[in-house]
Amino acid sequence: MPALLIRDLAQVASPAGTGAPLRGAELRRVDVVEDAYVLCRDGRVAAVGRMAELEPLRDDEVAELDGGGLVALPGLVDCHTHACFAGDRVDEFDLRASGASYEEIHAAGGGILSTVRATRAAGEDALRAALESRRAAMRSHGTTTWEAKSGYGLDRETELAQLRAVAAVGGVATWLGAHAVPPEFADADAYLDFALAEVLPEAAGIADAADVFLERGAFDAAQARRYLSACREAGLVLRLHADQFTEAGGVELAVELGARSVDHLEATGPDGVRALGGSDVTAVLLPIAALVLDRPQPPGRALVDAGAAVALATDLNPGSAFGESLPLACALACTQTGLAPAEALAACTVNAAHVLGRADRVGRLAPGYDADVVLLDAPDWRYVAYHVSGGDVAVVVEGGEVAWRG
Amino acid sequence: MPALLIRDLAQVASPAGTGAPLRGAELRRVDVVEDAYVLCRDGRVAAVGRMAELEPLRDDEVAELDGGGLVALPGLVDCHTHACFAGDRVDEFDLRASGASYEEIHAAGGGILSTVRATRAAGEDALRAALESRRAAMRSHGTTTWEAKSGYGLDRETELAQLRAVAAVGGVATWLGAHAVPPEFADADAYLDFALAEVLPEAAGIADAADVFLERGAFDAAQARRYLSACREAGLVLRLHADQFTEAGGVELAVELGARSVDHLEATGPDGVRALGGSDVTAVLLPIAALVLDRPQPPGRALVDAGAAVALATDLNPGSAFGESLPLACALACTQTGLAPAEALAACTVNAAHVLGRADRVGRLAPGYDADVVLLDAPDWRYVAYHVSGGDVAVVVEGGEVAWRG
Repeated sequence: MPALLIRDLAQVASPAGTGAPLRGAELRRVDVVEDAYVLCRDGRVAAVGRMAELEPLRDDEVAELDGGGLVALPGLVDCHTHACFAGDRVDEFDLRASGASYEEIHAAGGGILSTVRATRAAGEDALRAALESRRAAMRSHGTTTWEAKSGYGLDRETELAQLRAVAAVGGVATWLGAHAVPPEFADADAYLDFALAEVLPEAAGIADAADVFLERGAFDAAQARRYLSACREAGLVLRLHADQFTEAGGVELAVELGARSVDHLEATGPDGVRALGGSDVTAVLLPIAALVLDRPQPPGRALVDAGAAVALATDLNPGSAFGESLPLACALACTQTGLAPAEALAACTVNAAHVLGRADRVGRLAPGYDADVVLLDAPDWRYVAYHVSGGDVAVVVEGGEVAWRG
Repeated sequence: MPALLIRDLAQVASPAGTGAPLRGAELRRVDVVEDAYVLCRDGRVAAVGRMAELEPLRDDEVAELDGGGLVALPGLVDCHTHACFAGDRVDEFDLRASGASYEEIHAAGGGILSTVRATRAAGEDALRAALESRRAAMRSHGTTTWEAKSGYGLDRETELAQLRAVAAVGGVATWLGAHAVPPEFADADAYLDFALAEVLPEAAGIADAADVFLERGAFDAAQARRYLSACREAGLVLRLHADQFTEAGGVELAVELGARSVDHLEATGPDGVRALGGSDVTAVLLPIAALVLDRPQPPGRALVDAGAAVALATDLNPGSAFGESLPLACALACTQTGLAPAEALAACTVNAAHVLGRADRVGRLAPGYDADVVLLDAPDWRYVAYHVSGGDVAVVVEGGEVAWRG
């Protein structure tokens, strides 16, 4: 594999520091090198520096990529998606625009369960093809590392098929066994009996983490504790969907159980913000979902100011956030939740990588990290948030090789 | 020029009816033909129909375009942009994300006047090149007919250079002579004395319309009346930026003067909604600007329900709406202002064409209209609003020829 020299870049920008997750003032520190190069060797970043200081290369073979007029960022990391689904929910979108609420649609048998029906019916090959297509769209927006959850199967076969598809397409798999109660079970507890006995053992061999939708109409705090405790026993990292519509104890449970992340937080009040600020649980903001559902945005500024580790993700799913773009999430984080562009960048690189347990490998453009690089056709790295309609991603490099060109 | 047959389309969707602008229930009627074709001849739409009913073509030469898996929409019409500018305002975006307000930035000499400095300094060639680049981005999001305003010159030479650049790049030019008061004038009245005497006579020969920013800190209602009255005398169609931050009489003035449109309306209350509902003034919604400035969205639903003709535009500009995407504006119109997808589509096609005086030529996919066609890689035309990250535009046809491919 030849070395790759990306040369004459207008800027290289990367979150500063070395550890993860970043908090407080650390989130605002971006290392910017102007008139710069990135050198990749053996799939890793070998060096980043100023063109004027580039020394002759000793490599046998070097591929060059002209970075003139471009800025380089670390490949973006999407730590919360539901990208593995069949069908769409465009009819529901139309209904909602005509006045129906998300919870009303869910209660009428639409919402998540309509995607469950489509996903169960699709078959594993079609599911994988749909995921491949969405993965390509994610890459076109600069995402190089991504997570996707199950939760649209809710039976043994389809949950495992979802997890296998995610792994096969190169994502980090999360078992969202507790997403909704499927119609063949009388109640949430009966469904959890089944899921923990029949799905968890095999799911734990494919997924990195387990996740639960703790919300009115889905699973309550006691059910979430039971589910997550069993998943922890099975060796899975813990995550929670919490406080999307109501505060129902998810933040407290996340802290109690030592969860890796708690995601959504649109309804989180000052006590929850304070609890997260003093914890090791990363707060994952999903501003596209809040936008699409026209709900209050999560308290991003307050969380950062409280000292919380904040990450940012798309929540890509067919109901509440049909969009693959982390730059759009950055634009919303800056305009709707009060984050500065530097904080938004750290939130969808280093801190998102931390949520996925990959922060030693991805999320920065620095020697030793995976050579995942996004080149924007823009004069300043902050266009990633400023250019609200996106479309600036010109080249995506993965593992030191060009993976996509616009 | 050969005929162009776009065949095997999953859907062709076009606002129904024949007149313009559309109001009330008319806004929800979309003609959808499944398994369809669009035939273009001599730059116009010759026929739209079902593949099963396609008769043998009598043309000497027919180019074919495979529409399999695609949906066709009329080329989108962006009736309100400030696309002709130099420089950017990414520093200001960063500042604002850190807590400064738009009006504070303006008062500190930033805002519009910083773009005026950059635009005056750029020179006409650079200005035209910047506009060409933005026009290409607009096209990649499906825009085939567009307007752009002056207003970043505020001196004779630069205002006229902006208008010439817009015309040269193929847009509809609007003289926004009353955008802000440039620093070389003591007050708004002194600046208007100059603009109306020295710029209007020549501007009226290039522009279709005149526009004014009626707002605290810019021009008041009396100044706007004076400016617009003189512009009407010179033969220009009238438009207003009004009620962006405060209700300052812009709606009443628009109705009084018989303006073609009043744009923004984020601060418009029930009286203004009622006045527009009973008028011939089109209400232009600019939801990207409201999003970026984190302001209340305009009352789209209330305006439609009151019987107003509603249009939708990007407001593309470097300060409050740096985005070229009408699909993003559609997504926001549906999720933030209560419009249904059909209403959003009509608002950025037929009704936007009406604002530009082009509704007899563009805004529908029907025989006799210009053959401006957007092909989305999507199974349903409503993806134009549903797919919030966009990116579905696969092919853009202008005047019966392929102008862009994704």
